[in-house]
Amino acid sequence: MSLAKTPAPPYLAVIFTSARTEGDRGYEAMAERMVALAEGQPGFLGMDSVRGEVGVGITVAYFRDEAAIAQWRAHPEHRVAQREGRETWYADYEVRVARVERAYGKER
Amino acid sequence: MSLAKTPAPPYLAVIFTSARTEGDRGYEAMAERMVALAEGQPGFLGMDSVRGEVGVGITVAYFRDEAAIAQWRAHPEHRVAQREGRETWYADYEVRVARVERAYGKER
Repeated sequence: MSLAKTPAPPYLAVIFTSARTEGDRGYEAMAERMVALAEGQPGFLGMDSVRGEVGVGITVAYFRDEAAIAQWRAHPEHRVAQREGRETWYADYEVRVARVERAYGKER
Repeated sequence: MSLAKTPAPPYLAVIFTSARTEGDRGYEAMAERMVALAEGQPGFLGMDSVRGEVGVGITVAYFRDEAAIAQWRAHPEHRVAQREGRETWYADYEVRVARVERAYGKER
């Protein structure tokens, strides 16, 4: 897995931190499907996602603008996943929407 | 491990994504020390950090303002860790500084 490479700021980041409940209960298949769906969204710029051994995960998805975020949030399949996330998969989560103002990498 | 609970926006998020090189070479001890140091910084609001099985990690640190970020970035021990990170521990990394504009959690 490699790191997301995004265009020059400004753009938006949706920071999703979560703690999973026990057991899969359809989670892995949904997660894969959501990545594929997100990648097809207009204005989607990339994503970094990691889940650790103790069930805590961080996903940061990058979008061009608020319209792209609104469209992704309202996607019918994503809405079903959001509800299932609240009810079944996540013991806790936090969503933060942030405007990336500057960025730099190892090579720059 | 639980999720960081931050005050109401606005505040800043430093999103650090990284890919580790092979072997520890002092990394784990440094990482623990940096968390302890960051927690003592004025204006530090919390942190979420996860590293996955394939060596990719995401750390998101939350700060009150730019002054707090500048102070943390310039901390002498942190500067040593930054240099060692570039030279030894990280095959790749990306730092994004973002302004959190809104946030919501499972219970709200």
